[in-house]
Amino acid sequence: MNRSDELIIADRARLLGPNVPTFYDDPIHLIKGDGVWVWDVNGRKYLDCYNNVPHVGHCHAKVVDAISRQAATLNTHTRYLHEGIVRYVEKLTNTFDDHLSTAIMTCTGSEANDIALRMCETITGKCGVIATDHTYHGNTTAVAKLSRTNAPKTGDCSNVRHVPAPDSYRPLGGESGIAHARAFAEEVQRSIDELENTEHGFSALIVCPYFVNEGFPNLHNQFLELTEKVVRKAGGLIIADEVQPGFGRLGSHMWGHQRAGIQPDIVTLGKPMGNGHPVGGVVTSMDIMTAFRDSFRYFNTFGGNPVSCAAAEAVLEVLDEEALMKQALDVGNYARSGLKELALEHECIGDVRGSGMLFGAEIVLDRHTKQPATAYTKSLVNELRNEGILLNFLGIHSNTLKIRPNLQFTCEHADILLNSLDKILKRLKPHP
Amino acid sequence: MNRSDELIIADRARLLGPNVPTFYDDPIHLIKGDGVWVWDVNGRKYLDCYNNVPHVGHCHAKVVDAISRQAATLNTHTRYLHEGIVRYVEKLTNTFDDHLSTAIMTCTGSEANDIALRMCETITGKCGVIATDHTYHGNTTAVAKLSRTNAPKTGDCSNVRHVPAPDSYRPLGGESGIAHARAFAEEVQRSIDELENTEHGFSALIVCPYFVNEGFPNLHNQFLELTEKVVRKAGGLIIADEVQPGFGRLGSHMWGHQRAGIQPDIVTLGKPMGNGHPVGGVVTSMDIMTAFRDSFRYFNTFGGNPVSCAAAEAVLEVLDEEALMKQALDVGNYARSGLKELALEHECIGDVRGSGMLFGAEIVLDRHTKQPATAYTKSLVNELRNEGILLNFLGIHSNTLKIRPNLQFTCEHADILLNSLDKILKRLKPHP
Repeated sequence: MNRSDELIIADRARLLGPNVPTFYDDPIHLIKGDGVWVWDVNGRKYLDCYNNVPHVGHCHAKVVDAISRQAATLNTHTRYLHEGIVRYVEKLTNTFDDHLSTAIMTCTGSEANDIALRMCETITGKCGVIATDHTYHGNTTAVAKLSRTNAPKTGDCSNVRHVPAPDSYRPLGGESGIAHARAFAEEVQRSIDELENTEHGFSALIVCPYFVNEGFPNLHNQFLELTEKVVRKAGGLIIADEVQPGFGRLGSHMWGHQRAGIQPDIVTLGKPMGNGHPVGGVVTSMDIMTAFRDSFRYFNTFGGNPVSCAAAEAVLEVLDEEALMKQALDVGNYARSGLKELALEHECIGDVRGSGMLFGAEIVLDRHTKQPATAYTKSLVNELRNEGILLNFLGIHSNTLKIRPNLQFTCEHADILLNSLDKILKRLKPHP
Repeated sequence: MNRSDELIIADRARLLGPNVPTFYDDPIHLIKGDGVWVWDVNGRKYLDCYNNVPHVGHCHAKVVDAISRQAATLNTHTRYLHEGIVRYVEKLTNTFDDHLSTAIMTCTGSEANDIALRMCETITGKCGVIATDHTYHGNTTAVAKLSRTNAPKTGDCSNVRHVPAPDSYRPLGGESGIAHARAFAEEVQRSIDELENTEHGFSALIVCPYFVNEGFPNLHNQFLELTEKVVRKAGGLIIADEVQPGFGRLGSHMWGHQRAGIQPDIVTLGKPMGNGHPVGGVVTSMDIMTAFRDSFRYFNTFGGNPVSCAAAEAVLEVLDEEALMKQALDVGNYARSGLKELALEHECIGDVRGSGMLFGAEIVLDRHTKQPATAYTKSLVNELRNEGILLNFLGIHSNTLKIRPNLQFTCEHADILLNSLDKILKRLKPHP
């Protein structure tokens, strides 16, 4: 680590306080980004296989141009009329099923989920929420409660119930497929019953429809449909948190819930929406929107401002013009095939999963016992970083390589990643 | 209203839902901004005497340039090292008293207040909050509760108590000065006692130190000091919401709490911080920051990203380079003098108040009874809009002209405003 990095680390501790997270044992000091590449302060280049915020590529010229032009023209709020927000929300809602026809624009995915919970409370008159035990939905007081792995030490979380995250490699009840789906739906039913026996009652299930933080398990295509029925029967609502799988990342569908075959009442959006510009959103039906807007005179100063809308609209246009969803599908298939080939040589690759530009592999000490190689996975990620490849790990056992590049990633980039991974897997062996 | 405006209004109703607020009986369709001026779609120019978000001027070249350059270079998050955030937080905290030495960067003032409430809960172990009955602190689930005039119809607000907003024109107990301050402190004490008799206990007082939404009353210079003592004695914390008075707007001081002579534990920032770019922040002591970061593993994807920091840093630089705080003081004094001259002629101007670029006048039907001319004030604001002057009204009786231009406002601009106001006051008389 050079002197300037040490200074920044010391300044962060002094000015930002303790426990401000960084990636890697040896944090990276980035100063430039372009497409799928980023550069550190020493001029070293890294292949970014992880960051989903610059969805259509780091510093994409069209998005930068849209932001720069609008920032130089006008940036105000939605209490004046402006074409930007209606043009964007029209384009956005056109990518959803008909009933999801209205939107609120926010600045973050956290703000979006915070609104979604209140929408459900407005409709059901109840406030009990179910989430999985390995998820994360954001950082506001109301939303931070939903995370069990990252639970706040302060505050009342009695309105939240957690169900075991689906794990296709080690399925609930021991069996994959529809039995797994049934076991998950039963867990949701159990939590509904518990909440209904409290003052909170059952309001909503909030779920990432591709279970990304849970390790993007390879689930039966009707997996969530059974759960959807259970929720509906209990009079609850479904919030699909599309912050990670949305905007075409999965390649097969624009939205994760479309792939999962469910009809959420509310969809929440964040990170990739403005390619890094702070934009989030909530998409829902007119009935739910009306109920919410009757109960809360919601206004968000920066939400839906002309610059945010210009950034978000440019992202949708680039997705379309550059056919990036198709690219995500093709390159994702190619990269997963490559990982499966590596698995023929490397015993520690226990399971290769994913779709489009969201894929990875579960790293194990033993394929028979499926014992997670958690410490080894962390070493791999740090070694890859040292080789110039940025990715990360996550999942129930923190042993799943999470590969989530932006949509400019090509087969040539996948080859660079696969070659580096192969090299490191040959050099660095798991140590039980 | 032209056809394109009608279409946007219809599209807003269809795509954004009902009750999405606009300003004025006849909403304005803005397409361009520059300095203190904005233009509508028909090319008509308006003097913006209201919008505080473009703090250093609409589309200020230095801020636009900072955003454009950084957006084209790199925009990522704080899990990588970057100099932008530490350089900005250093500059920012240098404008505060020594104990306010650390910061969290967020995307909105709402997120900032949401964090501030949790900081207080972490320190006190309690969650009861006191706010005034005519304030607004933001839109998250936890923060929206603090507003009584805009109270949510859903959700539990039992941890919030409201004290009567200070009103220097009609002071509590009938007497202005220190007696008013004592009466306010007594109301706070009463609320503390109430909260301490609930399961919530008393955690914090959150207050805009210039009571902007309350109508920026002209208070005794020790007004908040008595209340500060009451809060400290009860073991509570003080959150100063500087979203409106901060960043030099008052002319006399960089921060409203400095003018009020109190030492808040936590300061929250929003709207003007990035001149329209979505940036907010929380400034506090290392002890409180450490307690919070121990209890919440807080991370905000967009918070403190390089582009946000570049925008926010440019704002601080422009404030300094163009000596805008001094300008706010001088022009504010000039404009208030002008309003006082108008009051010699126009009986309906009951009280002229304010400091720097935050001033206005209370409009009454009768100076003796001080009966608020609420409907007339609204008519004035709409007439001013038709004359090309943008401002608004607020306060306990919704009869206070709120004049809050950006800091590029000069005495020439003040003259335009004063002349238009004079003309309309001559033409349009109050109708009781």
